[in-house]
Amino acid sequence: MGSTTAPWRHLLLNSLQANSHLRHSSYFQLATIGPNGQPANRTVVFRVFQDTTNKIQINTDCRSHKIEDLNHWPFAEICWYFTDSWEQFRINGAVDVIDGSNPDSMKLQQREKAWFDSSPKSRLQYLGPEPGLPSLDDQPIQVPSPLDPSAGPAEAFCLLLLDPDQVDYLNLKNNERISFSRKIVNEEISWSSEKVNP
Amino acid sequence: MGSTTAPWRHLLLNSLQANSHLRHSSYFQLATIGPNGQPANRTVVFRVFQDTTNKIQINTDCRSHKIEDLNHWPFAEICWYFTDSWEQFRINGAVDVIDGSNPDSMKLQQREKAWFDSSPKSRLQYLGPEPGLPSLDDQPIQVPSPLDPSAGPAEAFCLLLLDPDQVDYLNLKNNERISFSRKIVNEEISWSSEKVNP
Repeated sequence: MGSTTAPWRHLLLNSLQANSHLRHSSYFQLATIGPNGQPANRTVVFRVFQDTTNKIQINTDCRSHKIEDLNHWPFAEICWYFTDSWEQFRINGAVDVIDGSNPDSMKLQQREKAWFDSSPKSRLQYLGPEPGLPSLDDQPIQVPSPLDPSAGPAEAFCLLLLDPDQVDYLNLKNNERISFSRKIVNEEISWSSEKVNP
Repeated sequence: MGSTTAPWRHLLLNSLQANSHLRHSSYFQLATIGPNGQPANRTVVFRVFQDTTNKIQINTDCRSHKIEDLNHWPFAEICWYFTDSWEQFRINGAVDVIDGSNPDSMKLQQREKAWFDSSPKSRLQYLGPEPGLPSLDDQPIQVPSPLDPSAGPAEAFCLLLLDPDQVDYLNLKNNERISFSRKIVNEEISWSSEKVNP
């Protein structure tokens, strides 16, 4: 399918640049729906756009609840608020969950690349105990065996790819709001945009 | 129904205090589910706990999509990340939507109090054009007629009350995570807590 750079993308890259002095500028909140039909929401880290596409990469642990959520209902909405420039991006779309059992060798390569692109420290967490389960004692978290920097993805490592379908941009400094929608006509993607009331 | 101060509440008040030098420390992301079954997520502002309860107050515009979402499915999850102390609170529960047509006079009083507790500037936005609709022109937003500071709530003003059911606390500095759950036995509320793996 043809891919064009979405018109909201330069806004987002500008925001990332303008807020890059803040560690949390790459953090956003990802909302999903649990198998019990309840909304769920947590902070995750923006990694990168996938190659030249508009797809947003997120690394996560296969054992976290969000995977169960997404396997049940593969749609999410990102809310990304930039605290210095007072801009919000709401980005919704389908999410592709790529774990080690994925049958698509291209996707397994993407997962492997995401693994090696992440820091050794962040890789280590995928070797730790299962997130959300009761801690067995009050000891500090056991550090797993040292990481072999050349070792491929841990079993628990999962790559999420969110393919944006709609983007709502809000600038609280100038009170501007723009709604972007994706359209697919003859397998070609195009984006419409409209100024809306904040 | 009996109400006890929840054990997570002092953690949250500490975080608010520790991050109070940051304007955005009172902002969090509220996830809901739309009538189309899709997750929705946006930034809102924490106002206050309601009286001595654990209920979280949010002001919003009756004309925003979140009202439609909540009227359809009255549950939400807050994700509140404190950027200076590296703490995250995920808070889910049922949401009571209190607009001017509410038949409960106590709730109407709460809505009126929330109105007068908000700044004149924030009250003005409820007199503006309908959020999310196309902007009619490229003119700056028309400022509505001056606000009468003694006038009661605008029709579009809506008070949301989220009654926490579960709270997931994560501290990224010491890698501590605690899961809090509410239990109601014989109309008395109690809270259990458990340390879980981060």
